[in-house]
Amino acid sequence: MKFQTRKWIKPEDLNPNGSLFGGRLLEWIDEEAALFAIIQFDNKKVVTKSMGAIDFVASAKQGDVVEIGIEITKVGNAYISLSCEVRNIMTHETIITISNIIMVNLGEDGKPKAHGKNI
Amino acid sequence: MKFQTRKWIKPEDLNPNGSLFGGRLLEWIDEEAALFAIIQFDNKKVVTKSMGAIDFVASAKQGDVVEIGIEITKVGNAYISLSCEVRNIMTHETIITISNIIMVNLGEDGKPKAHGKNI
Amino acid sequence: MKFQTRKWIKPEDLNPNGSLFGGRLLEWIDEEAALFAIIQFDNKKVVTKSMGAIDFVASAKQGDVVEIGIEITKVGNAYISLSCEVRNIMTHETIITISNIIMVNLGEDGKPKAHGKNI
Amino acid sequence: MKFQTRKWIKPEDLNPNGSLFGGRLLEWIDEEAALFAIIQFDNKKVVTKSMGAIDFVASAKQGDVVEIGIEITKVGNAYISLSCEVRNIMTHETIITISNIIMVNLGEDGKPKAHGKNI
Amino acid sequence: MKFQTRKWIKPEDLNPNGSLFGGRLLEWIDEEAALFAIIQFDNKKVVTKSMGAIDFVASAKQGDVVEIGIEITKVGNAYISLSCEVRNIMTHETIITISNIIMVNLGEDGKPKAHGKNI
Amino acid sequence: MKFQTRKWIKPEDLNPNGSLFGGRLLEWIDEEAALFAIIQFDNKKVVTKSMGAIDFVASAKQGDVVEIGIEITKVGNAYISLSCEVRNIMTHETIITISNIIMVNLGEDGKPKAHGKNI
Repeated sequence: MKFQTRKWIKPEDLNPNGSLFGGRLLEWIDEEAALFAIIQFDNKKVVTKSMGAIDFVASAKQGDVVEIGIEITKVGNAYISLSCEVRNIMTHETIITISNIIMVNLGEDGKPKAHGKNI
Repeated sequence: MKFQTRKWIKPEDLNPNGSLFGGRLLEWIDEEAALFAIIQFDNKKVVTKSMGAIDFVASAKQGDVVEIGIEITKVGNAYISLSCEVRNIMTHETIITISNIIMVNLGEDGKPKAHGKNI
Repeated sequence: MKFQTRKWIKPEDLNPNGSLFGGRLLEWIDEEAALFAIIQFDNKKVVTKSMGAIDFVASAKQGDVVEIGIEITKVGNAYISLSCEVRNIMTHETIITISNIIMVNLGEDGKPKAHGKNI
Repeated sequence: MKFQTRKWIKPEDLNPNGSLFGGRLLEWIDEEAALFAIIQFDNKKVVTKSMGAIDFVASAKQGDVVEIGIEITKVGNAYISLSCEVRNIMTHETIITISNIIMVNLGEDGKPKAHGKNI
Repeated sequence: MKFQTRKWIKPEDLNPNGSLFGGRLLEWIDEEAALFAIIQFDNKKVVTKSMGAIDFVASAKQGDVVEIGIEITKVGNAYISLSCEVRNIMTHETIITISNIIMVNLGEDGKPKAHGKNI
Repeated sequence: MKFQTRKWIKPEDLNPNGSLFGGRLLEWIDEEAALFAIIQFDNKKVVTKSMGAIDFVASAKQGDVVEIGIEITKVGNAYISLSCEVRNIMTHETIITISNIIMVNLGEDGKPKAHGKNI
């Protein structure tokens, strides 16, 4: 798994209990999965079709730096399936894992289209 | 399923392809699930433990009004399991479904605690 | 009055004194009034024309869940007048009230147009 | 009336119809009224008590620069009453007016307190 | 130097150490420089070409009110060079200074174009 | 130079002319520089002291994916000096460069403190 994008947890990212808001984390991951697929397909028209199980393993707190890792678990004709893990960059403690993120390559008509890449 | 919170899709909610950004949608749902659990448990300390399968059924576009529905699918000792659907309020077309959202009731020590409610 | 949309007050919603920022609350209400009107008129082109008196009755704090209620107080040819109350969902304490929110139905030319609905 | 703070209308400030979102405008005004009162009272603990009539006179569009004007209309023992106008900085066209914005000076206990200033 | 736009530092503007996030401050300044240039050139198509040295002189904290000052230091054929200072509105303590902000006037083709103004 | 964090340019990141808002870009860079320093110093208390010349080389547009690169140019007793480049991840076109970003390591008292690391 390759960890690229990093985030610094700021007050605007917290839930009312003072730890990282899960919804913000999911927002970061969905963006990372989308841009990962864009790079693989070399096509800006991609869409998240589905996600498998999401496991909130541990919380993170203000001031923590986290990194988002993605790896390809399956390559289809018009899609890739990704696995994601976000972890604390200092302690390497896992914060969340998501399996089976299906990103689909779209054609100009907005319909799935073979990506034709050797991914 | 009871539909409560509604959202008006504004330019700040769009992905670069001009439809509703999936990450924003997940952020809305995580907030709705949390406050739903807070009301059930009558306790502000709750946490999202995990989510099951997420299915992005259809996209939504700028100006659409969507509503978020939640229903309880299982009641545990210290948690509830929720099912969520977001749909277009005018056409009733389903936009996303998420099953098995596990929300846990926490005690003052941050550990799971029996909610003791007749949910 | 029917209460629908709920919000969970997060750190990003606070003013520097640590209570709910009034400007954020007004933003939430303006969105709720607009989408309420869209549903009534079955038309996405609506505009807020004016609001009557706004009374900030009580403050709300981080972690509170609030719900936004709207009711119709008058139906005009091309507009509806709404009354709004936001309250704490647990205590039912009123946080803010706004009277006479005038929402206008617009035609394709951006001018007021009879809505023709039996509201 | 003195016009100070200026805003450049960006895509994130638009409603789905492509003009300035009224809720954003109200958020800007509430912040401006609060900081105006903080300066007058020389006290950071202030609160918006109420607003009088709000009139959305004209809309504004992406790329417009607007300026927010505030003037004092009444000085009470523990409050000031403000009038606000937002206008297009190039054309001086009025976008919104709000009368009777009551800003209250608070003591350490969070209760209204005489400001003791010669405003 | 003329100080116009003011900001009230809210929790959403803080870095994890609890003081004003520098990135937010730079965002505010870039917007102020852009709208300042738009007014000077009487043209909405402007672009930030470069900035000179940025000096973070002091930090600011939640609840502070800051004001942004801009002055013109050079007028070119198709650009103006600006100097910026942000200071605490109560204490007049300098928070940040930026020199040589070059704002360029663009034509319809997106290329630099003489502004033709007597600035 | 090592490129890590990536961003997908969404409508909320645009200026009114429809290209990437420079202020947003500076916000992203300041966050990246801060977390880079946190990792080097193994200390969460860091502060941006100053930045050298900023050159907006090219603009970026909605849907582009950009990556942020940082490299160390000088190591001081209590600081590191960084150089930053943001580029389009597909075309490798440079969007912005910033030299001499001085990040300072702070002690518990908020004053510069030797980092004691072999960076």
